[in-house]
Amino acid sequence: MNISELSTPALLIDADAFDHNLAAMAAVHPGSRLRPHVKAHKCTSLAAAQYAYGHHSFTCATPREMVGMAAAGLGDDLLLANETLDPTRLAAMAAAQDNAMITVAVDSIETIDAAAAAGIENVLIDVNVGLPRCGCQPSAAGKLADQARERGLVVRGVMGYEGHLMAIVDRNEQRAKVAAAMEQLMVARDLVGGPIVSAGGTDTFDLHTDQVTEIQAGTYALMDTYYGGRGHPFVQACFVLGTVICSNDDYAVADAGLKTQGMDHGKPSMEGATVRFLSDEHITFQALKRPALGDRVKVIPAHIDPTMAMHEAAFIVRNDVVIDRWPIDLRGW
Amino acid sequence: MNISELSTPALLIDADAFDHNLAAMAAVHPGSRLRPHVKAHKCTSLAAAQYAYGHHSFTCATPREMVGMAAAGLGDDLLLANETLDPTRLAAMAAAQDNAMITVAVDSIETIDAAAAAGIENVLIDVNVGLPRCGCQPSAAGKLADQARERGLVVRGVMGYEGHLMAIVDRNEQRAKVAAAMEQLMVARDLVGGPIVSAGGTDTFDLHTDQVTEIQAGTYALMDTYYGGRGHPFVQACFVLGTVICSNDDYAVADAGLKTQGMDHGKPSMEGATVRFLSDEHITFQALKRPALGDRVKVIPAHIDPTMAMHEAAFIVRNDVVIDRWPIDLRGW
Repeated sequence: MNISELSTPALLIDADAFDHNLAAMAAVHPGSRLRPHVKAHKCTSLAAAQYAYGHHSFTCATPREMVGMAAAGLGDDLLLANETLDPTRLAAMAAAQDNAMITVAVDSIETIDAAAAAGIENVLIDVNVGLPRCGCQPSAAGKLADQARERGLVVRGVMGYEGHLMAIVDRNEQRAKVAAAMEQLMVARDLVGGPIVSAGGTDTFDLHTDQVTEIQAGTYALMDTYYGGRGHPFVQACFVLGTVICSNDDYAVADAGLKTQGMDHGKPSMEGATVRFLSDEHITFQALKRPALGDRVKVIPAHIDPTMAMHEAAFIVRNDVVIDRWPIDLRGW
Repeated sequence: MNISELSTPALLIDADAFDHNLAAMAAVHPGSRLRPHVKAHKCTSLAAAQYAYGHHSFTCATPREMVGMAAAGLGDDLLLANETLDPTRLAAMAAAQDNAMITVAVDSIETIDAAAAAGIENVLIDVNVGLPRCGCQPSAAGKLADQARERGLVVRGVMGYEGHLMAIVDRNEQRAKVAAAMEQLMVARDLVGGPIVSAGGTDTFDLHTDQVTEIQAGTYALMDTYYGGRGHPFVQACFVLGTVICSNDDYAVADAGLKTQGMDHGKPSMEGATVRFLSDEHITFQALKRPALGDRVKVIPAHIDPTMAMHEAAFIVRNDVVIDRWPIDLRGW
């Protein structure tokens, strides 16, 4: 099937670009040096491709991602890089421990108690390295680790996501700030112990020293306009396919609106066209060449993570031929 | 069940606020004077409540909404206020004509031909009244109507959505601009004929004369911060419920991130708190009173339509007691 036969809007993954990205990352961070982040795609088929590239440990942001990855046989080493107090969901993850290695992030006595009560076996101490989100202060990490161990939990180490340092224009400035943030994480590491020091993302994937034992990158596999154009060796591999349903001398409209892609990083982009605005089910754009009704257009998302979460499936394409369909099976919570 | 027992993030609909909104709108636009827009909620259970308030005709934005409404027994009079060239989806809507009245918008000879070829019986001529999106020029509407009738289609009238005139600060200015836009629609009406003149939205629901035979409002039922505070007689009825998973003297974090709500209108709001930022699965906020871990918080979406589309179900609550669960069953396309 050609993409011209797909009903739209439809999510496309370019197989060759995707493969390029996985190869490029595996060359820099092979095996367990990369812990791919499932939140960026929510798709076990995609995760299986990352697994085939040698990455057998994964990062998740939701309990559903954790349980779904375990059920898909991808549970060698799953980290919930997020806090939860939900006894039902913690119990679901604990039940998955029969077939998977489950580790959850904790950053407070409450999250430790919730994990222990649910029968979770492994935790990581989540450390705040400057992003105003979850994570304990570095100096508090040791006491939390002690409290976790007192409750019988295995403390595998620390994590600290430097999300506030993504997309800094000057890469030298970014490198210096990442180094300073990681100094904070090393303070916690020394207090906590354990083999794992987990950090990083796609935009800082090449800015970490070996002090960080694993990188939590996710966007690299598919990319978006936010991390694109930053000099990384990853190419755009994901597009929202739309059909032109209206076209005149001034603008054209396709059926790839804001319900098809994340808008928190602003408008998406299109090659050879300027995007004017999006509404629920439409994108209005000005193309260099006036498109005909029925033409297909490819929209480049500004933020891949929420975009993936809006679709039931992604179509895998090579030279505009559809070669597979992957359910986005880890949506929701 | 109390909302404190819900797993989060969860979408809440306050039953009394929702009922207030439906009553307030039905008082102004009873029966078929309102054609509620399903795109704002994508939920047949919610549409059934609108039906019970006397509105038996509905507006849809996607073929799936059309087919799903028909399957739910809510197909008395369904309008696809959007263009499609997709033969598969047009055929699905045509098949629904056995149990439902289906009307689709057309604005070009291509969309007319596609509708006729699929066996669609009824169309409405979509007219551009200033919003740079779909719709023919008013002067072209008559010829399109003729072409549609030549192909055996019943032309029920015209529609023209003044989406570019929503949220204008000065309501007198807005009223004048709406009137000017509707003059354009009347030009088309006079050329086209047919009983229906369909236009409007929640923010202009009270700015139309009787020349417009029906109002396509959707947001009014649940509301959001974009249309809230504009003096309308509708109250906030929908919230994203989150759980506080991190809290310190500076800020707190709950699990209601940007994958739980539309961000195209900017950040959501919270009563008694300032929202700092959202990431995929988190909202960081500063509350007047430091929340405790496990506290529930209600986030008010900035844009209700994409928010609904991100959830599998909505929980109907009264005084924080969960009284029902409505699947968001018309998601996707």
